[in-house]
Amino acid sequence: MRYASWISELKESFLGEILKTASYEDVISFAGGLPAQELFPKDDLKDCFNQVFEEDGFMALQYAEALGYDPLRAWILEQINAGSKTKTLEDIIITTGSQQGLSLVAQIFIDPSDVILVESPTYLGALQAFQSYKPTILMVPSDQDGIIPEDLEEILKKQNPKFLYVIPNYQNPTGRIMSLQRRKDLVEIAAKYNLVIVEDNPYGLLRYEDEAYPNLMDLYDNVIYLGSFSKILSPGLRVGYVIAKKEIINQLARAKEGMDLFSNSLAQRAVFKYVTCKSINEHIAKLRKAYTARRDVMLSSFEKYIGDWAKINRPKGGLFVWVKIEKIKDSKEFLEQWAQKEKVIFVPGTFFYVDGRISNEMRINFSCSSPEVIEEGVKRIAQALSKVK
Amino acid sequence: MRYASWISELKESFLGEILKTASYEDVISFAGGLPAQELFPKDDLKDCFNQVFEEDGFMALQYAEALGYDPLRAWILEQINAGSKTKTLEDIIITTGSQQGLSLVAQIFIDPSDVILVESPTYLGALQAFQSYKPTILMVPSDQDGIIPEDLEEILKKQNPKFLYVIPNYQNPTGRIMSLQRRKDLVEIAAKYNLVIVEDNPYGLLRYEDEAYPNLMDLYDNVIYLGSFSKILSPGLRVGYVIAKKEIINQLARAKEGMDLFSNSLAQRAVFKYVTCKSINEHIAKLRKAYTARRDVMLSSFEKYIGDWAKINRPKGGLFVWVKIEKIKDSKEFLEQWAQKEKVIFVPGTFFYVDGRISNEMRINFSCSSPEVIEEGVKRIAQALSKVK
Repeated sequence: MRYASWISELKESFLGEILKTASYEDVISFAGGLPAQELFPKDDLKDCFNQVFEEDGFMALQYAEALGYDPLRAWILEQINAGSKTKTLEDIIITTGSQQGLSLVAQIFIDPSDVILVESPTYLGALQAFQSYKPTILMVPSDQDGIIPEDLEEILKKQNPKFLYVIPNYQNPTGRIMSLQRRKDLVEIAAKYNLVIVEDNPYGLLRYEDEAYPNLMDLYDNVIYLGSFSKILSPGLRVGYVIAKKEIINQLARAKEGMDLFSNSLAQRAVFKYVTCKSINEHIAKLRKAYTARRDVMLSSFEKYIGDWAKINRPKGGLFVWVKIEKIKDSKEFLEQWAQKEKVIFVPGTFFYVDGRISNEMRINFSCSSPEVIEEGVKRIAQALSKVK
Repeated sequence: MRYASWISELKESFLGEILKTASYEDVISFAGGLPAQELFPKDDLKDCFNQVFEEDGFMALQYAEALGYDPLRAWILEQINAGSKTKTLEDIIITTGSQQGLSLVAQIFIDPSDVILVESPTYLGALQAFQSYKPTILMVPSDQDGIIPEDLEEILKKQNPKFLYVIPNYQNPTGRIMSLQRRKDLVEIAAKYNLVIVEDNPYGLLRYEDEAYPNLMDLYDNVIYLGSFSKILSPGLRVGYVIAKKEIINQLARAKEGMDLFSNSLAQRAVFKYVTCKSINEHIAKLRKAYTARRDVMLSSFEKYIGDWAKINRPKGGLFVWVKIEKIKDSKEFLEQWAQKEKVIFVPGTFFYVDGRISNEMRINFSCSSPEVIEEGVKRIAQALSKVK
């Protein structure tokens, strides 16, 4: 087959392989980024779908506009407008999950070889969304507070990137939050160089400690903001959104017409029913409580079973801890040679680096396993580590 | 904004503008490709969603694999395997409507300037799906039986296209069906030049006369087949599929992971419930009956009110008639200057030609208006025509 050139340059689809292994019996998977299935508000969502069918079923089954269902767009903006910058209905588009938001942004901005910037490390799925457009992806050096402003400025002196992609809240994979000072420094530099920032915020509402920081969108005009109902409601619905200047939303809508015409109308309407008729805030409070407990068990289990071998962060929100294991050199090799044999999996750090560097880090998910399973899984990691020569 | 180059080369988004006008009060729209809303099996689908929530609601709300819901994939193949070539589960992927199928095929095959071939005229949405990948699109001369094999061969002697895109059944926009002989001639030439054929078949089951011809997929190995539930069930569900060789499906799945991860799981499961527990064949029979009546009213109204001014085909299936009006030179100008004033709209022929040629043709949809509205709409077209100098 004569595929497009990006296909022949593809590396192995490791993420897909991991997700397959996760379904094997007896395997404990810390690899996915899955919300806790048993906490989905299944009965409430069922009610909402029924209401949609009863009240406007024929409309909901018909073709619809690429921009999405207006009442849902308006509701999202109402929440967002609690921030300092006021947005209007022309500034938002509904997407098929925020993964499609990434894909659309890439499609309207990237020509082959265009430079784009990402955090180091960054979300693997974003790299997958960008790759077919063949950008040159540069990693901006980052520490526990997010990307380092001085390093960003050094890059901007030499490069003219199409955008910078960041996840300020409880970042995937590191779980870190960008500090308030860093946010201010970042947008100051961005303004100076007229840099477009793509702000991805799937985890912002899964906050377990401290007050929320302002979104970059509230601090700077030139931001394309991606949001999602996948983590606070359900990923199976595939409802995400992009907020940006009207001009950009228009281009995204035209790209979306070509990509999938519009997103599932029933799901958009059911989400609107849910957020207006059910208790979204109570549901989020429930998630926070459960995930906080799971995070704490994850941290205490690492402390108990692995101790000094592991350097682990304490995420203040989100779904992941990021672990560095001093005893090993390559966490991918450790997964393949040792951890899989103990029936526990995670995502090795290498996959979150654009340069595919060897890494002794790993991304560990704590949201989709019960406290008991978390403890058992960490035991298995400890067991695997004890076998490494 | 520094967009990707394809954005700056975009023409006006006429399709979007048309769909907006269609929602204005008193406007009769023959412009969309919409199924009849009142015929959606709303109550049955409601039952199906309820069953999905009751039986596997938690699973259906969770992340899922890019390839789609296995039982639905298997069911589709069972239907398709009634044809001569046997396919397996590895040969099919579920897509977010078949529009996404087009977009994914474009993404995995097209590098900028690659040649691809289309019928003349062809589906506007396919051109929209392809455009961001910047192919060189060549139109293969076509007549009432589809593309002309000799002309195709002339092109293949000089060009090495990535694929040929065709809609063999009740084509959009012309309503024509590719004859059996043409299908045989086409695949013979395709085999000779090792040409990949992308076969788009959204309308095949909306057959009002004659027996079905074999799909190109049944006549030739090198076919990527796109199907959809949008026209036989509901477009709001966004459930389509692609059938092709395993190797191609694998690449499509990897591209889909980047594009939207996976398609709405509830909708996939509800469609499976529908096709296995409800009466899909009876529903299709009902659609055929209603659409046949609407087509006939469309044809007789043209005969009655417009007569010799119009040259109109008699489609044996699908959603469209294709009309050539000898009295005018440019149907886009006619729409803007005359028809819109009479509150009737359609899609001017020019938009279905890659070269944007001036055309006195128009695509007229007959599926989504009642017989009374169809007659009134054609009267309005006649009224508008009578005013043209």
